[in-house]
Amino acid sequence: MTSKQGLKIAVIGGGSSYTPELVEGFILHHRELPVRELWLVDIEPGLRKLNIVGSLAKRMVEKSGLPIEVHLTTDRRKAIEGADFVSTQMRVGMLDARGRDESIPLKYGVIGQETTGPGGMMKALRTIPVLLDICRDMEELAPNAWLLNFTNPAGMVTEAILKYSNVRSIGLCNAPIGLIKQTSAKYQVAPDRVYAEFVGLNHLHWVTRVDVEGEDKLDELLADTAGYSASNVPAREWNPEFLQSLRALPSYYLKYFYMTDAMLEEQLESFHQGINRAEVVKRVEEELFELYSDPDLKEKPKQLEQRGGAFYSEAAVNLMRSLYNGTNDIQTLNVANRGTLPFLPEDASIEVNCVVTNNGPLPLPVTRIPRMAVGLIQAVKTYEQLAIDAAVTGDRGLAIQALAHHPLVPSVEVAIKMLDEMLEANKEYLPQFFGKTPAHP
Amino acid sequence: MTSKQGLKIAVIGGGSSYTPELVEGFILHHRELPVRELWLVDIEPGLRKLNIVGSLAKRMVEKSGLPIEVHLTTDRRKAIEGADFVSTQMRVGMLDARGRDESIPLKYGVIGQETTGPGGMMKALRTIPVLLDICRDMEELAPNAWLLNFTNPAGMVTEAILKYSNVRSIGLCNAPIGLIKQTSAKYQVAPDRVYAEFVGLNHLHWVTRVDVEGEDKLDELLADTAGYSASNVPAREWNPEFLQSLRALPSYYLKYFYMTDAMLEEQLESFHQGINRAEVVKRVEEELFELYSDPDLKEKPKQLEQRGGAFYSEAAVNLMRSLYNGTNDIQTLNVANRGTLPFLPEDASIEVNCVVTNNGPLPLPVTRIPRMAVGLIQAVKTYEQLAIDAAVTGDRGLAIQALAHHPLVPSVEVAIKMLDEMLEANKEYLPQFFGKTPAHP
Amino acid sequence: MTSKQGLKIAVIGGGSSYTPELVEGFILHHRELPVRELWLVDIEPGLRKLNIVGSLAKRMVEKSGLPIEVHLTTDRRKAIEGADFVSTQMRVGMLDARGRDESIPLKYGVIGQETTGPGGMMKALRTIPVLLDICRDMEELAPNAWLLNFTNPAGMVTEAILKYSNVRSIGLCNAPIGLIKQTSAKYQVAPDRVYAEFVGLNHLHWVTRVDVEGEDKLDELLADTAGYSASNVPAREWNPEFLQSLRALPSYYLKYFYMTDAMLEEQLESFHQGINRAEVVKRVEEELFELYSDPDLKEKPKQLEQRGGAFYSEAAVNLMRSLYNGTNDIQTLNVANRGTLPFLPEDASIEVNCVVTNNGPLPLPVTRIPRMAVGLIQAVKTYEQLAIDAAVTGDRGLAIQALAHHPLVPSVEVAIKMLDEMLEANKEYLPQFFGKTPAHP
Amino acid sequence: MTSKQGLKIAVIGGGSSYTPELVEGFILHHRELPVRELWLVDIEPGLRKLNIVGSLAKRMVEKSGLPIEVHLTTDRRKAIEGADFVSTQMRVGMLDARGRDESIPLKYGVIGQETTGPGGMMKALRTIPVLLDICRDMEELAPNAWLLNFTNPAGMVTEAILKYSNVRSIGLCNAPIGLIKQTSAKYQVAPDRVYAEFVGLNHLHWVTRVDVEGEDKLDELLADTAGYSASNVPAREWNPEFLQSLRALPSYYLKYFYMTDAMLEEQLESFHQGINRAEVVKRVEEELFELYSDPDLKEKPKQLEQRGGAFYSEAAVNLMRSLYNGTNDIQTLNVANRGTLPFLPEDASIEVNCVVTNNGPLPLPVTRIPRMAVGLIQAVKTYEQLAIDAAVTGDRGLAIQALAHHPLVPSVEVAIKMLDEMLEANKEYLPQFFGKTPAHP
Repeated sequence: MTSKQGLKIAVIGGGSSYTPELVEGFILHHRELPVRELWLVDIEPGLRKLNIVGSLAKRMVEKSGLPIEVHLTTDRRKAIEGADFVSTQMRVGMLDARGRDESIPLKYGVIGQETTGPGGMMKALRTIPVLLDICRDMEELAPNAWLLNFTNPAGMVTEAILKYSNVRSIGLCNAPIGLIKQTSAKYQVAPDRVYAEFVGLNHLHWVTRVDVEGEDKLDELLADTAGYSASNVPAREWNPEFLQSLRALPSYYLKYFYMTDAMLEEQLESFHQGINRAEVVKRVEEELFELYSDPDLKEKPKQLEQRGGAFYSEAAVNLMRSLYNGTNDIQTLNVANRGTLPFLPEDASIEVNCVVTNNGPLPLPVTRIPRMAVGLIQAVKTYEQLAIDAAVTGDRGLAIQALAHHPLVPSVEVAIKMLDEMLEANKEYLPQFFGKTPAHP
Repeated sequence: MTSKQGLKIAVIGGGSSYTPELVEGFILHHRELPVRELWLVDIEPGLRKLNIVGSLAKRMVEKSGLPIEVHLTTDRRKAIEGADFVSTQMRVGMLDARGRDESIPLKYGVIGQETTGPGGMMKALRTIPVLLDICRDMEELAPNAWLLNFTNPAGMVTEAILKYSNVRSIGLCNAPIGLIKQTSAKYQVAPDRVYAEFVGLNHLHWVTRVDVEGEDKLDELLADTAGYSASNVPAREWNPEFLQSLRALPSYYLKYFYMTDAMLEEQLESFHQGINRAEVVKRVEEELFELYSDPDLKEKPKQLEQRGGAFYSEAAVNLMRSLYNGTNDIQTLNVANRGTLPFLPEDASIEVNCVVTNNGPLPLPVTRIPRMAVGLIQAVKTYEQLAIDAAVTGDRGLAIQALAHHPLVPSVEVAIKMLDEMLEANKEYLPQFFGKTPAHP
Repeated sequence: MTSKQGLKIAVIGGGSSYTPELVEGFILHHRELPVRELWLVDIEPGLRKLNIVGSLAKRMVEKSGLPIEVHLTTDRRKAIEGADFVSTQMRVGMLDARGRDESIPLKYGVIGQETTGPGGMMKALRTIPVLLDICRDMEELAPNAWLLNFTNPAGMVTEAILKYSNVRSIGLCNAPIGLIKQTSAKYQVAPDRVYAEFVGLNHLHWVTRVDVEGEDKLDELLADTAGYSASNVPAREWNPEFLQSLRALPSYYLKYFYMTDAMLEEQLESFHQGINRAEVVKRVEEELFELYSDPDLKEKPKQLEQRGGAFYSEAAVNLMRSLYNGTNDIQTLNVANRGTLPFLPEDASIEVNCVVTNNGPLPLPVTRIPRMAVGLIQAVKTYEQLAIDAAVTGDRGLAIQALAHHPLVPSVEVAIKMLDEMLEANKEYLPQFFGKTPAHP
Repeated sequence: MTSKQGLKIAVIGGGSSYTPELVEGFILHHRELPVRELWLVDIEPGLRKLNIVGSLAKRMVEKSGLPIEVHLTTDRRKAIEGADFVSTQMRVGMLDARGRDESIPLKYGVIGQETTGPGGMMKALRTIPVLLDICRDMEELAPNAWLLNFTNPAGMVTEAILKYSNVRSIGLCNAPIGLIKQTSAKYQVAPDRVYAEFVGLNHLHWVTRVDVEGEDKLDELLADTAGYSASNVPAREWNPEFLQSLRALPSYYLKYFYMTDAMLEEQLESFHQGINRAEVVKRVEEELFELYSDPDLKEKPKQLEQRGGAFYSEAAVNLMRSLYNGTNDIQTLNVANRGTLPFLPEDASIEVNCVVTNNGPLPLPVTRIPRMAVGLIQAVKTYEQLAIDAAVTGDRGLAIQALAHHPLVPSVEVAIKMLDEMLEANKEYLPQFFGKTPAHP
């Protein structure tokens, strides 16, 4: 970090409804993170939203009186050029694609979820080539910048970047910070008095240690069968005997693996009732943009906090601050394994605690790997590796192997049939599978 | 091997219908494996069968004119004392227990199989303590003997012995030798002109290379969707696209994982038709013992070869010969991992090619690990490790974790309910789970 | 750390001349490290010094007005009982033994040094059994205490404790903090604005990165052939071409390996001139104790800072504070390797940067292992492992192997002759080698 | 191996005095290794010798009546084109360069030896670029051929090829086969009844197990302080106490490390007496070529067996036979580590027992790593890696680091001075260090 006169930040997918939170973060922490230029980039079809959210951003900055320039653009390369940080928050295929990711698997009796299982794989196939395209730009125009990736499936996207580009990249999820906040609220202490050890992959972690003011609270937390949770995954109680013998708090995403039958039943029920999470989110978004359009609004509206992605922007600003200042504090990030989990490949992305130095994050050794979790971590990582390579090469055989080896898919036959339907449905976004050079948004 | 005047061999479960094949092997290979004493041991309830098969063994030896003494006994310690090789082939709970292993999981919509899934776990819980008890005797009475273990689940039993005893032990399965024979028949060459590389666990391996007379035949074999097979697993065709992109021949046991839905359907159908494989085997066995009882029979009857366990005894005699003579030939065995598959623990049992030195088998480096297989291998190994420890400790929490993490079990709730029923049904053979010191048959 | 009403600290070798510095640290940092009881322990022959330094400690505490009780005792068990921290600073055989460690090797044309080479090995043979004896007491009387070990050779002692006891132990050296201080002085910045990455073993490390206020200064520092240094190792310039191609700052102890011929020549010269570092230190110590005896002295005298062991106590107090508060800051410590340097055994002690959590230090991944250093690190570690086992078992064969494989020893013959003389000279302190159960001071 | 009508073999350095032994091997084993074309290649200055030895080879073949064509050429590419096996036996700079390798280090008080220490490094710097040049030809003209490398330092050359080319290569040394022969003579058994386990690097191995007819003879062999030996390294007795506690037979090359002082003294004495091993070898060679010139000689002369390189050709023919037939027998070879010695890099060359399959050698797991040896192995490997990279890049800094870190070099200053003299003396053969593109013979 040598930008002495202030930082340039490019936000790809800047028209997102989350952007005001990010802007608020830049304003609040301007002293430690002196942003000079903030570039909000989006694609042509997102121009309306970019303008709404961009105007709000400008009003927020103006009110703050800080010397931050806000730029709105559809020229990604211009935004990236010379940036210190690039962050990405995008949805290739938008909410319609998400709807398909969630519904097609259900027809085959398989969990339909945005980031987990077949739905997550389709998202990866659509998203990874776009992210790598951004990396090509960064290698050329901002070779020393950090790419902070929020785009899901964040673990797979991060691993793809580690393997197929030279960009320095870190994957971020709001779940770890969510657990810290939830625990700090429960015990009425400041978040920095809670220390939790995370072990696993993105959306597939186990928490093996929770200290509150230096005292081990794992046993207490294991006694609470509600577990830790978030609004975007249905709440279901954990079996107490299971939780006790597991000796770790499972991520709420693990419900798709540990309660597959019940979660599937619930999804099918919603599906038959015509409930579609993607549609719900669409409506919430529309309401937010209506709010944002109010020319008198000059701050982040409260309603934003109720969305699933809470704390995303807080996590992002925290990370930028630590990288910029070399604070050597501990954050939970998606980074290259490099021996931290010795059973996984060196270049696998994992989600663990890291010390954030000004030379990048260093993963801390995990003090205990929950032995029960090893098989599932490896099984999902195998799927992830195959899916990443399928996304990059467009190799149908790899895609079959990825899906057939996913723990939630019951057989090779189902994998192949489901894949055929999903590829067809996503044809527009998967040029690599249809004999074309990828054309990105 | 210092037994200069001939070897002492103890066969635990000597009343098995397979014994005549083993005796035939000892007779045919007496020059390279000079057996002097053959002790057939069985438990009290097996005495009738022991006497029938033992008398046949004596008639076979007599006909051969070789100086082999055949001893029949229920005194296991006497048989083990000073032995050079101990082999085990047993079924704790006998065929009735197998029947339950195969049927109870079906009630929960889960594969019911003798060695794979919940059925295999129950077999492990019943069998491991008995095997460790034999090891205690060996440590005391025959500390330099080799234990050749055929008792299923052979991989788990071998790993339990590696971890919980000082006995030198090797696990054996007939599947690898079966592939060699099948390929040698297909190409009309001698078996020793076929070289196949096996990677994985017992009943969970992939064949990544098949050379016939030095020529790579993998592609040809991958084109055959019947795959390699055996009479004890239902025949089903592999999907050709899947097989091609897998780049390895899957063990026929892998059908339970790759074709779970179809295999389950077939099992349920059989079950509802009242077909019970354990009962079928029982009848076959009765017929064999009737044959064996004929005082004029002085050789292994042809009918024996039609049973599922073909080549078991051939594998055993081969292994004893190589250990005794230090032939340094290559056999596929279940041994401690020690870094061969770097993602698995050092002390995990694996099924791979080994050079058999007179100091024991040394696993060969695998030239290619099929990346698709890594996740499934780890997932099953995680289950195996938990189940082994559950078998040794009688810890219900470990048993829950083992079952809940088995890839064929759909949820924690199903795992716990199924476990409850299976523990109850096996109560007689699971003292470690019911507050008693294990009392072994 | 659950001692809510204040901490109990036991200092073994409390009569050391360094103790006032430690006491000063406890006084200055009492708010973050609320010491309630400070036990200074020493052996009978050290009673006079213990009383002198203990009285000074009491005067210092009294002046501070803090509620710290200072206890002086020769009853080690009483001091250890219920302690939160135990620190050790001792010299088995006192300065006379050091004199022999430094002079005997010279007769054989080998470097004579207190912690490096044959001298260091003799120190280890004398010291390790005593430390393990202290650990036995701790296991019984203070099982949750941390043992902070300053006793040289600190790396080997720490490894012996890791391997042969259950005590939680950390080894400490003043060299790393010395580099930080030296760099902070050079660049006129606060020490916490200097970040250096250390890789290697105790007294055998390389510094691969030095950031000053976030800027990489390695190149600048490599241009300075004086290197980083300390008063207890003779100053010699590094060859500039060597330093440039090494790409790391070598510890000043590495001069014994990289400049063996010149360092040896210098030692021989001093030896023939009758200069004896041990005698020099003796005199310095006597002067210090004279100062300490002054009943009007109520603070640490300035003269103490001129001794070689500068910053030792600062390092100790820093570490206790971080462990007690779980500050998660980074310190350079001697801890178990656990994969950090993948070429070394898991249980080897290494000297690297660690995050100090309230559950103990976690070693940070090293961002670059200087490839030139790998062989020397391994060679010295091999010697260390053999010497540790020799110290514990009294096995002469292991002692021969240790010395014969030390990089500074020219041949097996020299190793054996030198060992014979050194064992004889240290007979009194090496009961394990002379057929007696160790009797400790 | 698909050459159905017979094999083509190219011998680079075919004018060597060893060639008749190789030709004898091809004749004796023609049934299992059907050589059709034997190409002896040499450089222009070696043409006289090539013609002499080539004519003898032709007479030997003629006498055998076998259908082997012998070709003599200086056109290396023609010889390599379509070859099945390429073997190399060469001496870049010839015996004069060897004389310098052996004498220059002595001036600095350092061991002067052909393959060990500074002399070995100079040989590596001269030889590696030439071998890589041969590899370039093979990649183009014989991509499936095996390169059997006898050229010293064989371990380093093999590692250079592994790292910097795609050629399938194996390094060979006669020391392991020498131990087998020596032991088989001692115990009067056939060589194939001796099994020895080798651990280490080329010219730096330890023998950890010797079985004769299945019986462990290590203890007996350790009692013999003469050790195992060869004519090219001076005989010196091992210290019996050292040998006992080492628990392994050290290679005779290890005398340069374990008896450095005495070996150096002996070398200096010979040097001052004007004895020059290179000159001795020159004379022996001249005598051999005189013998070879005799048109009546039609077989390998007995005198050849007295040279140091005994069994080289036997080792070569054995290896070709096993590769060609896929015999799966065990040979001691220099191959890529791939985890066999876990403390060394994956791509380091090591000398261990391998199973020779028709797909290449697979290193066997070592059953015991002598812990004493680990440091020295790593130290020499560090030097080797640096020297290899210096040879390829011509980077003087790397050469300094390599030499300064060699265990036989006493200091950085000596390393740099000695390097300067040696580079200058080898200028003609080291274009990479003198600003020129390498021009190879």
